[in-house]
Amino acid sequence: MHLSTEHAVNLKAIVGPEAVRTAQDLSTRDAGVDPANFGASLMIRPGTTDEVARVLAYCNAARIGVVPQGGRTGLSGGAESHEGEIIVALDRLNRIESLDPLSRTVVAGAGVTLAALAERSAAHGLAPGIDLGARDSATLGGLVSTNAGGNAAFRHGTMRDRVLGLEVVLADGSVLTELGQVRKRNEGLAVERLFIGAEGTLGVVTRVALSLIASPGPPATALIAVPDLSAAVSLCDLTQRSQEFDLQAVELMSGNHAAATCRAAGAAQLAPLAVAPYVVLIEVSALDATAAAAGLLALLEQASERGLVADAAVAQNQAQRTTFWRIREDWAVDREHPGGLWYDVSVPVAGLPGYLIGCHARLAAHDSSLELFVIGHLADGNVHLTVNGSRPIRERYEEIAPLLTDELAALGGSFSAEHGIGLEKKATLLRLGAPVRLVMMRRLKAMFDPNGIMNPGKVL
Amino acid sequence: MHLSTEHAVNLKAIVGPEAVRTAQDLSTRDAGVDPANFGASLMIRPGTTDEVARVLAYCNAARIGVVPQGGRTGLSGGAESHEGEIIVALDRLNRIESLDPLSRTVVAGAGVTLAALAERSAAHGLAPGIDLGARDSATLGGLVSTNAGGNAAFRHGTMRDRVLGLEVVLADGSVLTELGQVRKRNEGLAVERLFIGAEGTLGVVTRVALSLIASPGPPATALIAVPDLSAAVSLCDLTQRSQEFDLQAVELMSGNHAAATCRAAGAAQLAPLAVAPYVVLIEVSALDATAAAAGLLALLEQASERGLVADAAVAQNQAQRTTFWRIREDWAVDREHPGGLWYDVSVPVAGLPGYLIGCHARLAAHDSSLELFVIGHLADGNVHLTVNGSRPIRERYEEIAPLLTDELAALGGSFSAEHGIGLEKKATLLRLGAPVRLVMMRRLKAMFDPNGIMNPGKVL
Repeated sequence: MHLSTEHAVNLKAIVGPEAVRTAQDLSTRDAGVDPANFGASLMIRPGTTDEVARVLAYCNAARIGVVPQGGRTGLSGGAESHEGEIIVALDRLNRIESLDPLSRTVVAGAGVTLAALAERSAAHGLAPGIDLGARDSATLGGLVSTNAGGNAAFRHGTMRDRVLGLEVVLADGSVLTELGQVRKRNEGLAVERLFIGAEGTLGVVTRVALSLIASPGPPATALIAVPDLSAAVSLCDLTQRSQEFDLQAVELMSGNHAAATCRAAGAAQLAPLAVAPYVVLIEVSALDATAAAAGLLALLEQASERGLVADAAVAQNQAQRTTFWRIREDWAVDREHPGGLWYDVSVPVAGLPGYLIGCHARLAAHDSSLELFVIGHLADGNVHLTVNGSRPIRERYEEIAPLLTDELAALGGSFSAEHGIGLEKKATLLRLGAPVRLVMMRRLKAMFDPNGIMNPGKVL
Repeated sequence: MHLSTEHAVNLKAIVGPEAVRTAQDLSTRDAGVDPANFGASLMIRPGTTDEVARVLAYCNAARIGVVPQGGRTGLSGGAESHEGEIIVALDRLNRIESLDPLSRTVVAGAGVTLAALAERSAAHGLAPGIDLGARDSATLGGLVSTNAGGNAAFRHGTMRDRVLGLEVVLADGSVLTELGQVRKRNEGLAVERLFIGAEGTLGVVTRVALSLIASPGPPATALIAVPDLSAAVSLCDLTQRSQEFDLQAVELMSGNHAAATCRAAGAAQLAPLAVAPYVVLIEVSALDATAAAAGLLALLEQASERGLVADAAVAQNQAQRTTFWRIREDWAVDREHPGGLWYDVSVPVAGLPGYLIGCHARLAAHDSSLELFVIGHLADGNVHLTVNGSRPIRERYEEIAPLLTDELAALGGSFSAEHGIGLEKKATLLRLGAPVRLVMMRRLKAMFDPNGIMNPGKVL
C-alpha cells in the first residue's frame, strides 16, 4: 500500500519541506547496514520533540506505520521500513543540551552519536561508559531503544544502566518528559524505562539523560592466546579480581577469526597467536602508562604460572594497540565468507566452554560443511557466533538457530544478547519466549500503541 | 471489613497450619519500622513459588487485598496492612539456590536477607554490590521491590542495576520466571523489570538473579570536616577522579547530625569535627591496607591544598572505622527529637549546595522553630532531610513537603530517591508527577492487577 499524496503533503507540512526526504532522495543515500531500511518512500526528519509529537499524532489518527531510525547500524532488522510506512529519522535532534561535569550527567537529543558524546565528555575528563564498534554512527536514541551493550558493559552495564531519564513521544503524540538526572529516583512505576530496549515499538525516544563515568587512565593492551576456552574463563576471572589496574576490556575471539583478521591487517607477526583455539584481548588502565603496563605484565606472569597463556603479545605503542583492536573488531570473516549467519547470544561465563563445545558438535552433526567463528565480550559471556558454509547460507537462519539457541535458557543465558529482536529473532522469540511473558508483551504493546503504528511487525 | 473465617481456613489450607500467623501470634512479634505493618490479622508464609501463586489466585478470585512483606524495614509505609487484607510474608523463601563464582551471579529466594547474601558471597571473594543500614533485615524481594540504593549506588548502581533476572507471581497467580543470569539479555519488552521498584503493587517477587561484584580490598576511612557544602562537592569530585584507590563510599552529614551522633557514641575526640557545617565520610580500598591508607592520605593532602578540608580524622583501626560509620549511620537525631519528619530526595550533586541553602531559607521563613538535619550519599546526590521542631511534628508532613520538594524537578532531582512512595509520598507523587506518567501508571496497574488486590492503596 502506498502512502497517499495527501498524507505525504500533510506530514511534510509539519516539519517543513527541507526536513523531508523522498524516495528519490533516499535512493542516493546510504541505507546503513540493511538496504531494506529505506523500503519506505518518505522520510520525515523532525527538528523538535513537538514536531515528533505532531507527526505521531497524525500517523496515529491516519493509521500510518512509523519506523524510527537513528544511525541505521542495527543488526537485527529493527529499522527496516516498507512502502506505505514513513521513516521518522531523529538525526536532527543532535544537540548536547547540557553536560554537568560535577554531577557527571548529560542531557542530549536522541540523534547525537555515541562518538559525538564521547568527544564532548572527554573535554571534561569523562566518558559515556558505553562503547561499541558502531560508535561513529550509532545514536543515543538507537542505543537506548536497543539497550546497547558493547565492550564495557561487564563493568558499567548496558545502556539501561546508563540511562537516568528519558523523554519519549507516545504513539498518540503525547509526550512523557522524565529527564531527571539522578541515579536514585523511585517515583512509582518506571513507565519511561519500558522504552529502553523496546526497539521503537512503543513510541519514539527524543531526549536522554545519561550518567557519565570518569575517563580511564592511559591503557595497556595485550593479545593472549589461550590453550582452551576454560583457560580463557579462568584468565577472565583472574583479571577481574586484580586490584592493580582498572579493567577496560576482556574480549574474546576464536583462532579462525583472529587468523582472518591478522591476514586482513597484514599483521604477520601476530599470526602465530591465531594457531590457538581462542585469543583474548585484555585492556587495562591505571594512573599512568607505566603503572598500566606494569599491572598488565604482572597479570600475564600470574596467568602464565597458572598455565593460562599459550602465547601473548603486548602493544608497545598506540599503533600496535589499534592493530590489536582491529584483530578483534574487523569484519574480515564476513568479507571472506559473504552470506553467513550471525547469532548474538549470552551465557553465564562459567558455562561458556561447555556451550561452545556443544555448538561445535551440533553444527558438525547437522552439516559438516558449516564453520563457526566466535567473537565477543568475554566478561559478560556475550558471544557473537558467525556460521559460514561453503557458499552463502543467509536463508538458513531458522534452520540453524535451534542448534545454537535452544540450550541457552537452561544455562541461564539469552538467545538475544545485545542486538535486539528486530525482525531477525522474532521466530526465536516466539519459539523460546515464556507464554506468560509473550502475553504481557502483547498487552503492553496494545496499551501503548493501540493502533499498531509504532515500528510495525518488529519484535512481536 | 474483616476477613471471613471461610477465607482464612482456605488460605491456611494452601500453606499448612504451621505457615500461618494469626492476629494473636502477630501481637507478640516485631512489626518492624512501622507498627501498622501488622494491621491485618492474618499472615500467610508460603514456602514455595507455587504456594505464592495459589494464595494469589485465591485472593484474586475472592478480591482479598494482599500486602507482601520482606524485612519490614521500609520507611515509607509500603508494607502497612489493614483489617480484611492478608499479609504474604516471603521469609520462608530464604534459600540461596545457586552461586556461580566465575560468572559472579546468584539465584536466591526473595526472603534471603542482604546480610546473608553478603556473607555467602564473601566466601567466594564476592559481594552483593549494594549495601545499606538495614542490611540484617532487608530482604532481596523488598530490595528489588523498592529499587533500594544505599551507600554503593554511586558506583554499582541501585538494585535495578544489580538485577539480572526475576521470578514474579502475578495477581492472578500466573508465574513469570525470567531468571536469566546474564547482563546482556534483550528479549523484547522487559516485562519482568516493571516489578523493580513497583513496591508490590503489580505482583510478588519470589526469586531473583543478581550480579555480584569482586569484594573490595582492605579499607581506609576518614571523616573530613569541610568549610561548606561546595567544598564537599569539590571533594567528592576530586575523590571520584582519583585512580589511586577503589572508592567505596562518600557519605555526607550535617554538623548538627554529627554532633548528635558523636554525643551518642561518646566520641568526644571527634566532636570538634562537628563544628563544621558538613562532615564527609570517605572510604577507599586498595590491594592492601598500606596502599589504601597511602591513597587516602594523598587525597587528603590534595584536598587540603585546594582548601577543601577544615579538619579531618583517619581511622587507625577497625574499632575507629566502626565508630566513624556509627557517626554517619546512628539514629541519635531521631532519638533526641522523636516525632520528626524525614524526606528522601536526590539532586544532581552540583546543584546540592544551592538546593540545601534554599531549603534552610524556606524552612526558616516558614517556621523558625524548625531545625534541618542532613545525611546522605553525596556521590549520587541523595540526601535524607530530617526536620525537627521543638515538639513532635509528625502530622506536618504535607505542610512542609512542598518547601523541600517542589524545586527538585527543575533541578533534575527527585522527590523520591531510595525509600519508595509507599503511603508517605503518595500526595507528593500526585502533586508533582507528570499527568501523562500518572495515567500510564494507572493503566499498567489495571493491566497487571485488574481487581486491585496487590498492596492496595500504596503508591497510587
